[in-house]
Amino acid sequence: MPLAEKALIERIRKSVKRVRATQVVRGIGDDCAVLRVPRTDDTLVTTDFTLEGVHFRRKWHAPEIVGRRCLTRGLSDIAAMGGKPVAAFLSLALPRNLPQRWVDRFMNGLLELAAEFDVPLAGGDIAQSTAGVLADIILIGSVPKGGAILRSSARAGDLVYVTGELGGAAAALDALRKRSAGKVRASDYTRHFHPTPRVAIGQFLRLKKLASAMIDLSDGLSTDLRHICDESRVGATITGAAVPRAIVGRPARQVELTAALHGGEDYELLFTASKTKRIPDRILGVRVTPIGELTRRKGMVLVNDGVRCKLEPRGWEHFRH
Amino acid sequence: MPLAEKALIERIRKSVKRVRATQVVRGIGDDCAVLRVPRTDDTLVTTDFTLEGVHFRRKWHAPEIVGRRCLTRGLSDIAAMGGKPVAAFLSLALPRNLPQRWVDRFMNGLLELAAEFDVPLAGGDIAQSTAGVLADIILIGSVPKGGAILRSSARAGDLVYVTGELGGAAAALDALRKRSAGKVRASDYTRHFHPTPRVAIGQFLRLKKLASAMIDLSDGLSTDLRHICDESRVGATITGAAVPRAIVGRPARQVELTAALHGGEDYELLFTASKTKRIPDRILGVRVTPIGELTRRKGMVLVNDGVRCKLEPRGWEHFRH
Repeated sequence: MPLAEKALIERIRKSVKRVRATQVVRGIGDDCAVLRVPRTDDTLVTTDFTLEGVHFRRKWHAPEIVGRRCLTRGLSDIAAMGGKPVAAFLSLALPRNLPQRWVDRFMNGLLELAAEFDVPLAGGDIAQSTAGVLADIILIGSVPKGGAILRSSARAGDLVYVTGELGGAAAALDALRKRSAGKVRASDYTRHFHPTPRVAIGQFLRLKKLASAMIDLSDGLSTDLRHICDESRVGATITGAAVPRAIVGRPARQVELTAALHGGEDYELLFTASKTKRIPDRILGVRVTPIGELTRRKGMVLVNDGVRCKLEPRGWEHFRH
Repeated sequence: MPLAEKALIERIRKSVKRVRATQVVRGIGDDCAVLRVPRTDDTLVTTDFTLEGVHFRRKWHAPEIVGRRCLTRGLSDIAAMGGKPVAAFLSLALPRNLPQRWVDRFMNGLLELAAEFDVPLAGGDIAQSTAGVLADIILIGSVPKGGAILRSSARAGDLVYVTGELGGAAAALDALRKRSAGKVRASDYTRHFHPTPRVAIGQFLRLKKLASAMIDLSDGLSTDLRHICDESRVGATITGAAVPRAIVGRPARQVELTAALHGGEDYELLFTASKTKRIPDRILGVRVTPIGELTRRKGMVLVNDGVRCKLEPRGWEHFRH
């Protein structure tokens, strides 16, 4: 193993605090990690790529932000099942000429978020990349047996809710594209530059048995809602005016409806709930908004200023344009 | 989601047989897969990159072989813990111009091996790559609680054993480098082109409580033995003449000792065992060879034709030269 990789592994080993030692029997340093998930629980697994040029650009995104968003992708999937994160794994391929400082800062961003969520980095793989930084984050989580909130268990008549505000991440990408990166301040676009996965809200909804189905908003509302509709064999009607839009930029302004409908990577939660359930206006300090209803009739409809039109899934574009 | 990705996911969903349904509660199609590992077991997790230009070349390796070797990397890590595979996950990034046929054949190779080992592909991620085919294979396995065979539990005085023959994969790479790919027959270099992870042997060693420590030979004997030495805080003396060398090529010839000592990707097992244990000459039809002994004194020594010299870890080179 080349020295640079060895040094990186050593650094990760040292920087990972020995949290949740009871669930990570053996972390970095063997062929596999050994985990001990509580016997009352099911195990959750999710994997997500973060690729240079596809999910981030080095000239647009500080390394800490790339690291944070990388882990956010995985934690957000655990949140969407109502689960608790147990351990994270990182496969990381690095170009030969990448400054060590970049890697250090990337790991700082990732490990800072890991510490916030008390999730140990328990292993992964390190390789050389012939093209850009390539990261694959793997999250293992746990949820009481049979308790995972699926995409497939929504019913016609259920209301559709989202947490937080939408479109902020898409607006940030738009600003980065139009302006030089230096003029886009991270503090004006917090959801893009400093996303927080909604792990606690997901667990709250599961514990209170409020949600009939759930998904995280990584690909964009229109695409993610479509997944719920496909898996649950229902349709949906969304009220445009009800969709909570992010406030971004300087001077601060509300994002366009289209950014809120189709923009990805907000890492908020979309869930459905029976009309008989009382859903709070805020959960753990985060706004929760009803935006529409599931229908027996397939297909998604947007009602905007009294006009009904078909809502097409147009999310998950990343940097394609 | 672009249509090509959607079609691929559908294809994977359909091609995955519903094996081990009791352990995969929910596979592809949700934010996370939901697994139910037996309550008597620990969970194993491993991740391994397979990157174009680093681990394979499209002009050298047929797509089925790339797919097979990709999954082999993960299964071999499970084998090295004495574990049983539960489910595989694949993060796959594909260049836009990649022929659909290549992806189909890649998946065929991967799924054929998955069927051999009765391991379902339960999820993953699909993304666009700006440079070559990028695959990250994640294997979840299980092993009775506390039963995983670690790298760190070897003792000075234990004997060192390897399964099969070594250096065959490195010899294949060497031939591919020197000759046009068309002149290197897969059937003359089976360990490179058609590797079989030693999952059953790993389980045998665990069940019979024969091995004190174990690792799979993915990076090369010298590097992987070094991992055992580092983690177990021992040294090792290896007898050069004892190292079983692969027979490859046409006309068939034994590989050089240096290929067997440092060549990676043979996916055989290296294990250590107390001298009090009787280790069979063959396990499940595969040759098992004692090649040396662990020592209290740190460092690795090679004894060759009566000459002692330092054995340096020089594996894990992939295509660097």
